[in-house]
Amino acid sequence: MTTVALTLLPERRTLQAPHGATILASAQEAGVDITATCGGRGRCTSCRVKFVSGAVPPPTVMDELQLGDALVREGYRLSCQCRVMEPVAVLVAPPLDERSFQILGAQSPSEALARVEIDAGIRKEVVTVSLPKEEHHQTSDLEEMLAVLGRTPDDVSPALLQALPRALRQQRGEVTVTTFGSRVLAVEPGDTRLLKFGLAVDIGTTSVVTTLMELESGEELASVSSLNPQAVFGADLMSRIAFAQLDAGNLRKLRTRIVGLLNQHIEQVAADSGVLPKWIYKVVIVGNTCMHHLLLGIDPSHVGLAPYAPVMRHALVLPARELFLKVNPEARVCLLPLVAGFVGADAVGVALATRIGETPETRIAVDIGTNGEVLLGSRDRLWACSAPAGPALEGAQLRHGMRGALGAIDQVWLEDGDLRLHTIGDAPAQGICGSGVIDAIATLLEADILDWSGLIAVEGRDRLPAPLRGRVSVRGEERVVTLARAGEGGAAREILLTQDDVRQVQLCKGAIASGAAMLQRIAGVAPDQVSELMLAGGFGNYLSIRSALRIGLIPPLPASRIRYVGNAAALGAQLALMSETERARAETIARRIEHVSLAAHPDFQDVFVDCMNFPRT
Amino acid sequence: MTTVALTLLPERRTLQAPHGATILASAQEAGVDITATCGGRGRCTSCRVKFVSGAVPPPTVMDELQLGDALVREGYRLSCQCRVMEPVAVLVAPPLDERSFQILGAQSPSEALARVEIDAGIRKEVVTVSLPKEEHHQTSDLEEMLAVLGRTPDDVSPALLQALPRALRQQRGEVTVTTFGSRVLAVEPGDTRLLKFGLAVDIGTTSVVTTLMELESGEELASVSSLNPQAVFGADLMSRIAFAQLDAGNLRKLRTRIVGLLNQHIEQVAADSGVLPKWIYKVVIVGNTCMHHLLLGIDPSHVGLAPYAPVMRHALVLPARELFLKVNPEARVCLLPLVAGFVGADAVGVALATRIGETPETRIAVDIGTNGEVLLGSRDRLWACSAPAGPALEGAQLRHGMRGALGAIDQVWLEDGDLRLHTIGDAPAQGICGSGVIDAIATLLEADILDWSGLIAVEGRDRLPAPLRGRVSVRGEERVVTLARAGEGGAAREILLTQDDVRQVQLCKGAIASGAAMLQRIAGVAPDQVSELMLAGGFGNYLSIRSALRIGLIPPLPASRIRYVGNAAALGAQLALMSETERARAETIARRIEHVSLAAHPDFQDVFVDCMNFPRT
Repeated sequence: MTTVALTLLPERRTLQAPHGATILASAQEAGVDITATCGGRGRCTSCRVKFVSGAVPPPTVMDELQLGDALVREGYRLSCQCRVMEPVAVLVAPPLDERSFQILGAQSPSEALARVEIDAGIRKEVVTVSLPKEEHHQTSDLEEMLAVLGRTPDDVSPALLQALPRALRQQRGEVTVTTFGSRVLAVEPGDTRLLKFGLAVDIGTTSVVTTLMELESGEELASVSSLNPQAVFGADLMSRIAFAQLDAGNLRKLRTRIVGLLNQHIEQVAADSGVLPKWIYKVVIVGNTCMHHLLLGIDPSHVGLAPYAPVMRHALVLPARELFLKVNPEARVCLLPLVAGFVGADAVGVALATRIGETPETRIAVDIGTNGEVLLGSRDRLWACSAPAGPALEGAQLRHGMRGALGAIDQVWLEDGDLRLHTIGDAPAQGICGSGVIDAIATLLEADILDWSGLIAVEGRDRLPAPLRGRVSVRGEERVVTLARAGEGGAAREILLTQDDVRQVQLCKGAIASGAAMLQRIAGVAPDQVSELMLAGGFGNYLSIRSALRIGLIPPLPASRIRYVGNAAALGAQLALMSETERARAETIARRIEHVSLAAHPDFQDVFVDCMNFPRT
Repeated sequence: MTTVALTLLPERRTLQAPHGATILASAQEAGVDITATCGGRGRCTSCRVKFVSGAVPPPTVMDELQLGDALVREGYRLSCQCRVMEPVAVLVAPPLDERSFQILGAQSPSEALARVEIDAGIRKEVVTVSLPKEEHHQTSDLEEMLAVLGRTPDDVSPALLQALPRALRQQRGEVTVTTFGSRVLAVEPGDTRLLKFGLAVDIGTTSVVTTLMELESGEELASVSSLNPQAVFGADLMSRIAFAQLDAGNLRKLRTRIVGLLNQHIEQVAADSGVLPKWIYKVVIVGNTCMHHLLLGIDPSHVGLAPYAPVMRHALVLPARELFLKVNPEARVCLLPLVAGFVGADAVGVALATRIGETPETRIAVDIGTNGEVLLGSRDRLWACSAPAGPALEGAQLRHGMRGALGAIDQVWLEDGDLRLHTIGDAPAQGICGSGVIDAIATLLEADILDWSGLIAVEGRDRLPAPLRGRVSVRGEERVVTLARAGEGGAAREILLTQDDVRQVQLCKGAIASGAAMLQRIAGVAPDQVSELMLAGGFGNYLSIRSALRIGLIPPLPASRIRYVGNAAALGAQLALMSETERARAETIARRIEHVSLAAHPDFQDVFVDCMNFPRT
């Protein structure tokens, strides 16, 4: 067997690869892992490599299709498609660009998807349409195509006809017809059956997460998460509604912002994966009622006024062009149904992903977000209430808060009488994100720096070990804890947790904990009857259940009954994207959920105030 | 009875009007006609007057509604709403602006409309929706409204929901709901049942005519006609298709042009009538296949290539927003069905308006236009062919051709051995329009200035009476007839009919006459079996049947069997606008019409050449 030298960077490992074997196979054979999400079939971009030395082989069709012109020109190739013919050196899966955000929202489809049968509802079939040939015979391109498909003109949007004559004639009538139910979404020349993608989108008040999936396998090809750009017009729902009310132009502004962001996300996932936006035929969107209304351009003013009624609640299916989304213009955009003014499609997504309404045991799901929700139920009944936590746990509105990106403090603990920090990517600390804040407060409670009322105990600092003592101070009139000094442990700057930050977190966890307490009370469920508490939200893998319990973010259950389930709302969207059965199930769930309006409840105020305090151990 | 002096201008007639009577009633009482199309109900603008002296009374709601702010401020009032309280002088129905085009395309609905039962399909009902009141109860604005209407969410476009909450709350839940079939088109606060309008549009290759109609009465409120602005990219279909083929941007350009013009027309009829565009809920459009495709942005390239198949043919109903028409965004735009690549919805409109397929006798309908059609049939069978006449009879592509506007020569005759001319509005001659050209050529044939082959007989001019002799000359290499010398009869400039103009008309009439001859031949119908020939086109009231026969534009039938029916295609659109039964009938007609492709017929070339010549008397 002839072998050829294959050098894999950045590890600088040189293998003797069999002449003519693919780079992927050679690497795997030698025990070097190259991710190949699609199993080496040329259907994703995860196994891409960049040629660093040696002749770059001519691109294959799959290279062109998946990586796109620009990357191909830069010397990227799919290692599953590329055979070793002469000595070369390649860089394995280098980042496609310089951004290095830790994608928090992207939950791998995991168990939930594995349990559901994949049927996204998007069908592609190759047909050959006979073109009109005779002048007297009265027919049209469309009629000839419909005859083959057995469909009616009503199934086809006139917008689709704009390019029909060209598509039909490019490959002598051979076209791939994409349908969703009875609706014809696309007619493409030749056989494009392999190209079938969809997006799952979770529009939160503070964060937006978009995931690109291959619709046949359920494979996740790319994911992007960013701040909701509407936040500059108001961090929470009420201020955003107030802004929209101000004048009609503001409503348009809010709408334009979110549509613009979604289109940026589409560009991004397209670039990351090599999937062209025109191959995206289905989009599932979840979000709270206000986000939903704003996306549709519906005036949300009255959602913010008692009785907080939504303008509409039913599940919607719209062509992408009506929402100005730059995927295939006929792609179906499915908005999951709403429950109430402050319990939206995101809660429905959580219920869908957690199966909370399907077990004989009673469970609780807590979705932590700027506008969080709490669900409690079993297969018998299912309740939900909103938990307007504010953006503190998404890193917003804290002095040094930030998203879960490179350099965010995501873990805090006590060691040798001082605070210890961990940052995302082990980078110099830039700020603190949600899981870090929960850890920090739990740690400060442990260390007696915070008392149960949330006060930073400057007065008692003399009792503290020396290193900790130096961290507690009063700046101007404000009590602060210095989490990191500039330069300390490579910190990029001084990072503080202020008294006001602690109050923000108290409001936040008060909303969530009181929501859970109220639902238990209304449902008549004692703590020992709760078989599981599922904690959901965009915290990535870093949320400490122990810390969450310590600060009283969640009810005091045994830690063994508490599970962090990731971004359940986004996962719900992915389920509805991958399965029409799941999407139908979302409608049943929305109708089942019993909405509880906490503010209207006489006990609520007391419970809330109580939940604002930290548990006294 | 107290009376008050009322002076009516421009006639300067002064009446003694009963104190407190309306101006309209007082004028009518005194035998002065003021047009009141709506019967004096304040629902149109035809009885408007402008106050010239005396106090201008405060405007009524109807004044504001119908005339709009600007006109009200200029002193316009509806004479049916305005009571005479003190001596005043008013100008009766002065023109709303300075343009004084003679609207040729606007056929008054006349007999045809009188025969059909009016049912435009647009329903308005006033309902009171109870608004959500209770926080726990799960409902939405839309659900409350649908419960009252007995409809489902699928009947409502999400775009309609954008303003729903405000509309519902403006008059405590009282709204007028407009529907078309099961579709909800509008929800307006209060009672707007009186406001219900529609547009009939005829998009020709050269001219576009838009008519605004009140949907309850069928009353025509305004009409506007103008050149198709696509013409700068090609006067006939084939050159326009070639332009579209050149690149995709051109197709967009053509589409933008026609959509832009339609929106100008909408603005214009709205201004002329005081009807707000948002009260226009239905639009019916006819046009040839190419115009239809361009309006929809459908690539017409293959319509111009054998076998000239359209991309689609079925009747379409679309929301106005999808066509970018600035009427009510949810207004239904109905495009009548097509028959073949060169027999479009205009031909269907002609068949609808003339009832050609419904009589036991065989009749012929000739629609004269740049892309004319000929229909022949009875209730047994119905044939149609295209007659690509070119734009000569619409005043285009002739040396001094013009549309049928102020100053156009519209009649020509021989008197005292010389030509006599009539111009529209008796204004100084500016050019010659279609009916004038037909008259001119017939007259020149009579005077032996033209021979049967179409040659301007310069050689024989010495035989002519002196005044005529001076009109025939050779300029450069071109034979010309001087219809008017500059200053002659007040002519604004010299107006010529050139040899080339005559050839253009010969091509034009050759296409039409040969179409009629071929259909007779194919149907096996002898001339004496043709009970009626209907001449249709945008000629206004000025077309001379005698001249049309003289030049052989139409087959040589007794003049008594020939009738000019006006713009039948536009009338067909009006019928479909005013009656859903008629719109359904259009679909039956389109399926019945048997398309005859003349070019594919072996005899055609000979017949066509023969028809190019003028009849030898």
